[in-house]
Amino acid sequence: MLDTPKRLFVGRPLRSDRIGETLLPKRLALPVFCSDPLSSVAYATEQILLVLGLGGLALLRFTPWVGLAVAVLLVVVVASYRQTCFAYPNGGGAYTVSRENLGVRASLVAASALLVDYVLTVAVSVVAGVAAITSAVPALAPHAVALSVGLVVLLTVVNLRGVKESGRAFAIPTYGFVAIVLVLLAVAGVRLALGQTLTAESASLHLVPAEHTGGLLTVFLVLRAFASGCTALTGVEAVSNGIPSFRPPKDRNAAATLTIMGTLAVVMFGGITALGVLAHVHMAEGIQEKTALSQIGLAVFGGGPLFYLLQAFTAAILVLAANTAYNGFPVLASLLAHDGHLPRQLSRRGDRLVFSNGVVLLAGLAGLLVVAFDADVTRLIQLYIIGVFVAFTLSQAGMVRHWSTALRTAPDAAARRSIRRSQAINATGALATSVVLVLVLVTKFVHGAWLVVIAMPLLYVLMLKIRRHYDSVDVEAAPRPGGITLPGRVHAVVPVVKVNEPTLRTLAFARSIHPDDLSAVTVQVDPAETQRLMADWARRDIPVPLKVLESPYRDITQPLLDEVRSIGRHSPHDVVIVFVPEYVVRHWWEALLHNQSALRLKARLLFQPGVMVTSVPWQLGWEAPRT
Amino acid sequence: MLDTPKRLFVGRPLRSDRIGETLLPKRLALPVFCSDPLSSVAYATEQILLVLGLGGLALLRFTPWVGLAVAVLLVVVVASYRQTCFAYPNGGGAYTVSRENLGVRASLVAASALLVDYVLTVAVSVVAGVAAITSAVPALAPHAVALSVGLVVLLTVVNLRGVKESGRAFAIPTYGFVAIVLVLLAVAGVRLALGQTLTAESASLHLVPAEHTGGLLTVFLVLRAFASGCTALTGVEAVSNGIPSFRPPKDRNAAATLTIMGTLAVVMFGGITALGVLAHVHMAEGIQEKTALSQIGLAVFGGGPLFYLLQAFTAAILVLAANTAYNGFPVLASLLAHDGHLPRQLSRRGDRLVFSNGVVLLAGLAGLLVVAFDADVTRLIQLYIIGVFVAFTLSQAGMVRHWSTALRTAPDAAARRSIRRSQAINATGALATSVVLVLVLVTKFVHGAWLVVIAMPLLYVLMLKIRRHYDSVDVEAAPRPGGITLPGRVHAVVPVVKVNEPTLRTLAFARSIHPDDLSAVTVQVDPAETQRLMADWARRDIPVPLKVLESPYRDITQPLLDEVRSIGRHSPHDVVIVFVPEYVVRHWWEALLHNQSALRLKARLLFQPGVMVTSVPWQLGWEAPRT
Repeated sequence: MLDTPKRLFVGRPLRSDRIGETLLPKRLALPVFCSDPLSSVAYATEQILLVLGLGGLALLRFTPWVGLAVAVLLVVVVASYRQTCFAYPNGGGAYTVSRENLGVRASLVAASALLVDYVLTVAVSVVAGVAAITSAVPALAPHAVALSVGLVVLLTVVNLRGVKESGRAFAIPTYGFVAIVLVLLAVAGVRLALGQTLTAESASLHLVPAEHTGGLLTVFLVLRAFASGCTALTGVEAVSNGIPSFRPPKDRNAAATLTIMGTLAVVMFGGITALGVLAHVHMAEGIQEKTALSQIGLAVFGGGPLFYLLQAFTAAILVLAANTAYNGFPVLASLLAHDGHLPRQLSRRGDRLVFSNGVVLLAGLAGLLVVAFDADVTRLIQLYIIGVFVAFTLSQAGMVRHWSTALRTAPDAAARRSIRRSQAINATGALATSVVLVLVLVTKFVHGAWLVVIAMPLLYVLMLKIRRHYDSVDVEAAPRPGGITLPGRVHAVVPVVKVNEPTLRTLAFARSIHPDDLSAVTVQVDPAETQRLMADWARRDIPVPLKVLESPYRDITQPLLDEVRSIGRHSPHDVVIVFVPEYVVRHWWEALLHNQSALRLKARLLFQPGVMVTSVPWQLGWEAPRT
Repeated sequence: MLDTPKRLFVGRPLRSDRIGETLLPKRLALPVFCSDPLSSVAYATEQILLVLGLGGLALLRFTPWVGLAVAVLLVVVVASYRQTCFAYPNGGGAYTVSRENLGVRASLVAASALLVDYVLTVAVSVVAGVAAITSAVPALAPHAVALSVGLVVLLTVVNLRGVKESGRAFAIPTYGFVAIVLVLLAVAGVRLALGQTLTAESASLHLVPAEHTGGLLTVFLVLRAFASGCTALTGVEAVSNGIPSFRPPKDRNAAATLTIMGTLAVVMFGGITALGVLAHVHMAEGIQEKTALSQIGLAVFGGGPLFYLLQAFTAAILVLAANTAYNGFPVLASLLAHDGHLPRQLSRRGDRLVFSNGVVLLAGLAGLLVVAFDADVTRLIQLYIIGVFVAFTLSQAGMVRHWSTALRTAPDAAARRSIRRSQAINATGALATSVVLVLVLVTKFVHGAWLVVIAMPLLYVLMLKIRRHYDSVDVEAAPRPGGITLPGRVHAVVPVVKVNEPTLRTLAFARSIHPDDLSAVTVQVDPAETQRLMADWARRDIPVPLKVLESPYRDITQPLLDEVRSIGRHSPHDVVIVFVPEYVVRHWWEALLHNQSALRLKARLLFQPGVMVTSVPWQLGWEAPRT
């Protein structure tokens, strides 16, 4: 029924043996795995300016220092993740690393952090991409929510079709974005060198302090600005997940890619932040402004084609960044489902070799966030990066433990030295990210982060409980010693409302299995109807006894259940088979007109031990009469 | 699972034999059947003032004439319905009368009009009742939607419990409302006689003409005001539906009750309208004003206890009026379901002898309207009364036809004269209501009535189609001549994923019916898992062959379907029984963790002719191990 539209959108099914990997050279791996961290420079600077602006114009002087701190942290984290590449050439995501080194519980914490963050990556990136579009075409601004949801839907369809991580398609937006930002920095440098001034649209915007400042309050606001700027680090872990896709030597290529990415990110983020300060970009909450990057672009390029190119590439790389979550979430969910922590259907690849259920789940959650937060980047970003830093911290801490273990089997002093060096780097990373995690928690908690602080533990407990449930089912369903004894007698029961072909055929089918006894039962609601049924029954000479059940409360199900139970009571080794005639309709809406009583009866019978329920379908208008 | 909360709200089930009727004397029948028409005086005047006000203050001078026209129409309709009482002492609702005299199609038109109108009665009455409350306690005004929905829910729960039409409980609000309005008129008369002036709150409100007037446009606006005022007539037909509940002589008592109701309604409506003019109540759209009646009450009583009593009784009688629809809709729906025009489950009385499905359907639709129209009486009322007048017209026209038939068998000249008189009255009624129907359609169409003009034919077509569907099913399912031949061979198939207790028990159950052949099948998705399964199978020495099906597209369902189909193909007289092991969980959410594949398989197998599907439930944690 749903097959044709599904094929139209999703495409024809793909055979399992077409799953083989294509290995990527560095120049293609960079766009595939680094669009997320590179794209976040599109909004990281803006978030710093926005938070500092809450303290009034005076606080904007801290911008360079905050930017510097973010850049340093980025370097530390990249250095730390480079060690992971060498230690886990088969892929070292936070879930894997923490599961191996810190145990199941830590890995589930990492997993819940990652799942939450994948959802937020989609929401934030798509919304930020739409902001880039509406900054270029302000007329579209009122449709931001619709545009964002539309992009989520588009990404979902594309991913359900199954995008091979085709480096070439990814390369254009990523390299395009890097190139246009570098051009932006170069043009700005030349213009500044020529003594020109750059002035952003919002330079004249007078920022009134919205928050109290002075003393510790100022420190707090600066730390909050730093916490917001840390969004620049999101997605760094994608490379360590993707190591198996690199050409050999995988570890060294992956590490080199990380270094390139880190360098580019630091240059771009630093440059944009510097220009933001020089061009006096003033951001204020609650004012519908153009994005900081677009204001800088406008100031540097004027309104020409380069400006529109900047906006187009910004939007493109952000959508691409969202797409990386479409790869990450379903794979992680399938790992978790395989380990019994999520419903098993998440571990099944769909027609197109994609974990379709995971894709749909991700899209639903991200869409919900986009709508609930009114496609507002600033509000969404409050929820972001807590998960990132939880995963960072656990992953780095896991690496520290990993090196300790490696130390015990190190062959010589040189190896031990190298391991100690790696461990020191990871320890620095773990320390730095854990400190930032605390900072982020403290400074962003009341601004929306509490939602994530609730969601993550809930998810964690949920995953633990699901695993416990599957475990207990496995224990309960394990084959018993001594094997199965065959059931004793077989009793068949056919509920009857009316003598018609479906009923007669059901009786015939019931007789065909030669049960030890067979009875037809009807529930009397309207005595006149029952009389008619009994007369029909007698007239047709049906060779099965018809039993009439009283129902003083008009309920049809309960008397039948009681009857079935009383039949089954005779011997616990007997089985009762209830044959239920059922209409199979051609259109879903026809289902409303039939089977309501049958469905209710079947659902209730399932709870009766020792009872089987057999549906005898009667396909309405589907088949030639069949006897 | 849902049983405990259900019992808490709905109460214990009632035995069928407790359905007996209590017959009502006139003084109790009036509140039971007339709360709807009497309550509509609470908003009819307001609607007239509102529409005339659209033409500016000058047009308000037409108010008395419009009010007079409505009163005359009310007298005509009451006189016309009195004739129905004499002709149909067993109850003559529009559906019955038009079915008997005008045929099935006309009766379905009447039925769709009535169904739509019952829904609107609930919505309009509840919202108007809430308006009476918020007029007394303006602080509640922002919560009008929530209050209205709350009242709908309350009425639903009360009606699911099954209110016997207990006259006494109905008497207090109805007589209370009548009394307080009569007191209002008396006090106003005395004050006016003493030369005092009554001034409504809104008297100083200057009404700017919102619509063009002059010539035909003025006529049109006055006609629209008349159409809006006709809401005073809603619910008149309730008495003719309820005749069986009257004490004998039923016909005369019912007719007398109608006369009393008509007199009271004319007096109250006329009085309120007069006071509205005298106190200069100015209503304007889009301004959140108190209701017209409450403004009059405030002007006459001041803000004292009598004013609050007026508001309380207004709210109470309006809620009661909504309640009459809770009696009418489910009964009419059950008649229609019994005649095969609506899904059959609407014709079943629930635990508490109430047609529960109809009650829930009505509540859902009314709640939807309340929310969609933002609990705004004026907007909802645009949809109202089209249905009422369709039903009136068909019912009166049916009566004209009825008398023509009666004329043929009239025994003598006196009888013939009496019949001719009745026929003339009904013809007048039919003519008047049909003219008003056209007026309402024309004047209200663009203001929202188009929605009803679309909804009613859709409902009509739907009911025709449902009947056609049931008819064709009956034909298709009729017992064939020649009887049933027993099926030939019985093939049993058990899909297997894993060797565990549920699988082993399913195999044992399948063997217990001694099929002609029995095979276990598994779909290979992961070759390693299949190897493990086959090893387990061999080790346990299971005496059933295990067949492995390839699935290059990883789909589990299709290969099984193909296999079942190929087994069934050998002989069209054979049957295939597929035994599907199924987990029965204790909590609904656990259902997400199990059976997804089984459910999908079962749903698809239903479409295979000659295939029965047997669920072998395994109750998780419910039962002691059972072999």
